[in-house]
Amino acid sequence: MPVGTRGAVKGVAFDWLEAWDCRVVLANTYHLMARPGLATIEKAGGLHAYMGWPRALLTDSGGFQVMSLAARRRVSDEGVEFRSPEDGTRHFLTPQRAMELQSVFGVDVAMALDVCPAFPAERAEVEEACRRTLAWAERCRRAYSGPGLLFGIVQGGTHEDLRRKSAQDLVALDFPGYAIGGVAVGESKEAIREVTARTAALLPGDRPRYLMGVGTPADLLASVRAGIDLFDCVLPTRNGRMGHAYTSRGEVAIKHERFKEDLSPLDPDCACPVCRRHSRAYLRNLFVLKDFSAPMLLSMHNVHFYLGWMRRLREAIQGGRLGELEAPPEEKILDGA
Amino acid sequence: MPVGTRGAVKGVAFDWLEAWDCRVVLANTYHLMARPGLATIEKAGGLHAYMGWPRALLTDSGGFQVMSLAARRRVSDEGVEFRSPEDGTRHFLTPQRAMELQSVFGVDVAMALDVCPAFPAERAEVEEACRRTLAWAERCRRAYSGPGLLFGIVQGGTHEDLRRKSAQDLVALDFPGYAIGGVAVGESKEAIREVTARTAALLPGDRPRYLMGVGTPADLLASVRAGIDLFDCVLPTRNGRMGHAYTSRGEVAIKHERFKEDLSPLDPDCACPVCRRHSRAYLRNLFVLKDFSAPMLLSMHNVHFYLGWMRRLREAIQGGRLGELEAPPEEKILDGA
Repeated sequence: MPVGTRGAVKGVAFDWLEAWDCRVVLANTYHLMARPGLATIEKAGGLHAYMGWPRALLTDSGGFQVMSLAARRRVSDEGVEFRSPEDGTRHFLTPQRAMELQSVFGVDVAMALDVCPAFPAERAEVEEACRRTLAWAERCRRAYSGPGLLFGIVQGGTHEDLRRKSAQDLVALDFPGYAIGGVAVGESKEAIREVTARTAALLPGDRPRYLMGVGTPADLLASVRAGIDLFDCVLPTRNGRMGHAYTSRGEVAIKHERFKEDLSPLDPDCACPVCRRHSRAYLRNLFVLKDFSAPMLLSMHNVHFYLGWMRRLREAIQGGRLGELEAPPEEKILDGA
Repeated sequence: MPVGTRGAVKGVAFDWLEAWDCRVVLANTYHLMARPGLATIEKAGGLHAYMGWPRALLTDSGGFQVMSLAARRRVSDEGVEFRSPEDGTRHFLTPQRAMELQSVFGVDVAMALDVCPAFPAERAEVEEACRRTLAWAERCRRAYSGPGLLFGIVQGGTHEDLRRKSAQDLVALDFPGYAIGGVAVGESKEAIREVTARTAALLPGDRPRYLMGVGTPADLLASVRAGIDLFDCVLPTRNGRMGHAYTSRGEVAIKHERFKEDLSPLDPDCACPVCRRHSRAYLRNLFVLKDFSAPMLLSMHNVHFYLGWMRRLREAIQGGRLGELEAPPEEKILDGA
């Protein structure tokens, strides 16, 4: 799922996403409840109509952003009280409120409100987060009245027993889908993969399993092999805006001097509108000169690449070839063409 | 012609331009000779291949940018000596060099090197600019070896007699097309329209007439009525990035509070990918929050609007209805929907 924080996937017009077989976009409840606010989205007829995206939408619950972005937050069993970092106004996000927001949004997949502890955290803090996440999941289950599916979120940090308990408790609540949260918040790549594999194995195979906030193309392959079905990640757009491209041959840091005369496309195996027309030398020049089109073009390529990579993973599963599939190298490409 | 200063039309992928029947893009010789430089463009096989734009290209000569952007320039009969504002390197742009660049670029329309005086300027300075522009036009005519058409540029400021002499002198050189330069450099709208109409009437009707750097949709209509065939202007992209949209109902300054709850499209009569999906409220929110997609979406709409407006002008000419056509109002739209 490309990330559309404020209702737009940065630098990638929705017509491209539709042309590239993108089926779900993620949007952020935390950002949308602040601006434009629930009333405007309701007046528009829901989030699909407000955004102009008729295909599936998944919204996070706002919990992760409250923990990472909001100022002076105070978590209690009731919910999270916080101040908006923009205008200082006081807000109170409860499980009920998170469900009301996402119900009115009318999204296809809503997420339960969870508590995502920072990393590293004391074991006691992670235990407390799991306890609250479970209590809130029950309240969310009762409060959600939207047309979509409500997913529960497993917490537990890097503690195997806490992850197991969190997964089992949530599965007992019988959600139509499950997410693994609280990963990729600062742990090592090995820890992320281990937690993902162990947790995915505890979740029912007949329900969608969603790994939140991950990752590189190789991370996606490893996670799909572990049973994950859904991902969201800002890497293709955020890194695209910074001049970092994902390709089938490795990663291209386009601003590097070595691409100055390189007239080959970003990715010789790519049929996206950027690779069909433009060379690394052209894109590098636009980046060096801070041309507005440069971040747009790399974001387009990266999102196209990620969507194509996920399609290859789906086809490999269908063809029984997932074990043979090789991820693109994570090394940077060092030679010009 | 959308403006692709450094080889990209800021915020508008070339696939859109092709879909919207854009036939010519303008690129800036001054910027391209600095970066990536002639060698890279030659190595790519010309400017079309370097940019990834197979349709027609027009390049300016670099003269206007040297006058307006370069540091410590010195104009002599030989050409313009200047220092790059970026790295302080010394350059010498002569008519021969401007022709060499555009010949190797392989563009469809090349422009003669001219001297564009600042506005306001003493009459003597404008006379001197006309004299040099004519002398350089002769040298350009001999030096140009590219595959395209070389256009001469009429100067003369707001002086009727100087414009007439400049036009007549150039016409005597028998160029395949003519441009009116040195307009829209600070004069009043009335002065621009008067100079345009008077000068266009002095240029042969069987050759393309190109008004450089103009203007609003209403300016385009007035100029087409005066006989102008070709335009380039940064307004749709530059103003789009600033949050200013051109519509059939008037101009929309999208950041304004009044559009906060306005769920109607930028332009109810527009079928562009932005107006088909998004509301003013959605676009305003992205602009207020400085989302990267916001300037992109308004640039897309504006370029689509300009290309559509030019198509309407062509159809009106073909249908004998140019006199009846009404320009969209230049007033800002004051009411939300």
